[in-house]
Amino acid sequence: MGKITTRSPFAPDSLPALPPIAGVRFATAEAGIRYKDRTDLMVAVLDEGTSVAGVFTQSKTASAPVLACRKHLKKGSARLLVVNSGNANAFTGKKGREAVDITVDAAAKAADCGRHDVFVASTGVIGEPLDAEKFAHLLDGLTKAAVPDAFEAGARAIMTTDTYPKVATRTALIGDVEVTINGFCKGAGMIAPDMATMLAFIFTDAHIAPKALQALLDAHVETTFNAMTVDGDTSTSDTCLLFATGDASARGQEPVTKADSKKLKAFSAALHDLMADLAIQVAKDGEGLSKFVTFVVEGAESEKAARRIAMSCANSPILKTAIAGEDPNWGRVVMAVGKSGEAADRDKLSIWFGEHCVAREGERAAEYDEATVAAYMKNREIVIRIDAGVGRASSHVWTCDLTHDYVSINADYRS
Amino acid sequence: MGKITTRSPFAPDSLPALPPIAGVRFATAEAGIRYKDRTDLMVAVLDEGTSVAGVFTQSKTASAPVLACRKHLKKGSARLLVVNSGNANAFTGKKGREAVDITVDAAAKAADCGRHDVFVASTGVIGEPLDAEKFAHLLDGLTKAAVPDAFEAGARAIMTTDTYPKVATRTALIGDVEVTINGFCKGAGMIAPDMATMLAFIFTDAHIAPKALQALLDAHVETTFNAMTVDGDTSTSDTCLLFATGDASARGQEPVTKADSKKLKAFSAALHDLMADLAIQVAKDGEGLSKFVTFVVEGAESEKAARRIAMSCANSPILKTAIAGEDPNWGRVVMAVGKSGEAADRDKLSIWFGEHCVAREGERAAEYDEATVAAYMKNREIVIRIDAGVGRASSHVWTCDLTHDYVSINADYRS
Repeated sequence: MGKITTRSPFAPDSLPALPPIAGVRFATAEAGIRYKDRTDLMVAVLDEGTSVAGVFTQSKTASAPVLACRKHLKKGSARLLVVNSGNANAFTGKKGREAVDITVDAAAKAADCGRHDVFVASTGVIGEPLDAEKFAHLLDGLTKAAVPDAFEAGARAIMTTDTYPKVATRTALIGDVEVTINGFCKGAGMIAPDMATMLAFIFTDAHIAPKALQALLDAHVETTFNAMTVDGDTSTSDTCLLFATGDASARGQEPVTKADSKKLKAFSAALHDLMADLAIQVAKDGEGLSKFVTFVVEGAESEKAARRIAMSCANSPILKTAIAGEDPNWGRVVMAVGKSGEAADRDKLSIWFGEHCVAREGERAAEYDEATVAAYMKNREIVIRIDAGVGRASSHVWTCDLTHDYVSINADYRS
Repeated sequence: MGKITTRSPFAPDSLPALPPIAGVRFATAEAGIRYKDRTDLMVAVLDEGTSVAGVFTQSKTASAPVLACRKHLKKGSARLLVVNSGNANAFTGKKGREAVDITVDAAAKAADCGRHDVFVASTGVIGEPLDAEKFAHLLDGLTKAAVPDAFEAGARAIMTTDTYPKVATRTALIGDVEVTINGFCKGAGMIAPDMATMLAFIFTDAHIAPKALQALLDAHVETTFNAMTVDGDTSTSDTCLLFATGDASARGQEPVTKADSKKLKAFSAALHDLMADLAIQVAKDGEGLSKFVTFVVEGAESEKAARRIAMSCANSPILKTAIAGEDPNWGRVVMAVGKSGEAADRDKLSIWFGEHCVAREGERAAEYDEATVAAYMKNREIVIRIDAGVGRASSHVWTCDLTHDYVSINADYRS
């Protein structure tokens, strides 16, 4: 793997403590898949009756584990999640499918469940065959050894070149029963040399039927993980899985079967909040970043159009490098809005850097003062707001700047 | 403006000599629009009867000059082209339209022609009002002083941070009359700080009706200028104009009115060749580049799909930085193919770096030898070929790598 990256300036001093969730247990191991002296295998054991929902990469070259998850998801139940780091098992052809088969068979045996109850994810090098024999024999022991209070260990085992583990926890009432949601994830974009994949795993003790769970996940992923970009490079392996063990029903939670049930209002809000938290943590660990940037687009034709305009800004190399250079270069914002292809009224477009209006209704704002805006650009967190001037819809995208370190990390030869 | 960029390693030692073209004359001036001690204003005077065709940026925030050209193009005739560098007159609102009006009025008076016979283009800073009074009074004198043998002077006057002028010339037979095509252009992408715009101007003495000329230009732009990218950032001002003076008819060329006329076969091929030459020159002057890269995609569902796959590769920051690092990182090619959204068969996908097959039918090629391919990556010109495995269509995209110098150039504060 490439050189060790500098720790993100946004790395937290301490991690939030994630409470155990009834029905979820973890175990990790050093399987030596690629890394030395660190965990690279994680197993999450789930109680019988666990519902599962998932969203995956839109890549046309999706990895073998993604294809397996998509297939297993149809049944909506889960008992075991197996994740390895160090090798993405992507673009590995027939060998890749065989590695998944070996893993799933060993996992189903270990958890005494159907193959469709097993979910797998791999992250790391693309194109290298994954030798599942290195870890398949460990799954039985890990499943037996799994303990509830080990979310952070799980989060650490799935890291590749992330500079910090990304965890979040929330609670919500369903009826009058409090349920917990814990989640962790690893870096987005095509992190450092050869590393790919955003993986996110979310667990709750709520009792929610698979279809309702899927509807919640689909809705929230759009404004959280899909509203975040490091370099616009979609990996072959992006996976987000949401598991609901249902154990809260033992404490009186009435099972919920519909996503639009009023009972899920608080849960849905907490889930969104947790997913947004994780997505922001990923952007804040973007390769080589020096600044965290939020693009807010208002006055667009639709929420989708607003997000596309924001994404066009967030993926513009020339705008991202200007931000790295602390240059309030709003001409590049105009360019990025224009190239998005979404409706924007050239003569009504307005742009703010933080609270400072730099352009109003199609031309430079009268009050624009370059020194003031340049001073704002020295902040570590930058908000750029755009009014497209054509409608009432809004959205946002979280990203980071594009720095010399990004080039160093990614141009660094692998060997 | 930002720091002076290093001369591209692809800058030619000498420029080809462009012969005069009957019916076209040039004049340039130092109008002091933004730069000191260099020409920043160019006038091309065209004989009566000149046909014109044009293609423009797809940006939704197109500049005022682009909107004027689109309008004037409807008549299909041209007498004067006025181009300034140093200020793009983009996102300048009402003032921008007024600056165009002042320029067009002065130009129409100078050339004694209709307003619709005047074409304008501006390149440089976005968002700064363009003071047309600085140069409108010069147009009359320039029109009178224009001379035929001044293509290179024209090419130099429209440069912003290009590190060399980009010119090309070709000849072709229409019937048995030889016609000449000359062209020049300036940099693509959002070149250095605040600079925008690709501008290309092509001139011929052929006698071709406007509609036929437009059809030829539309067809060829797809596989030339639109098959080239530096950073994927579309400017607000991209403009390509093709002028045909018709003077070759004095030497016996029969006027052609249809683009699909057999008589235009050689002309069309020469025009394509010239446009490809210019587009390649632009990619070879990409910001901070160290390598010129061609992505060739074969086996795609359609030519458009092939170009989209190639463009997805050519605009991938993580792949472009790997190439800068001379890393034969074909996993990133797989990623970029996958994220294009176009059909590709994961299990039939094959990839070559130069002549070296690195992946065949969905997995690493048996003969893959990293040292051999790493040695190939040390070349200054890199060809990456992809077989998508789903069809028979092919296309290509020209681009450059993404280097530390790109970041330095673009993060450099403007003041």
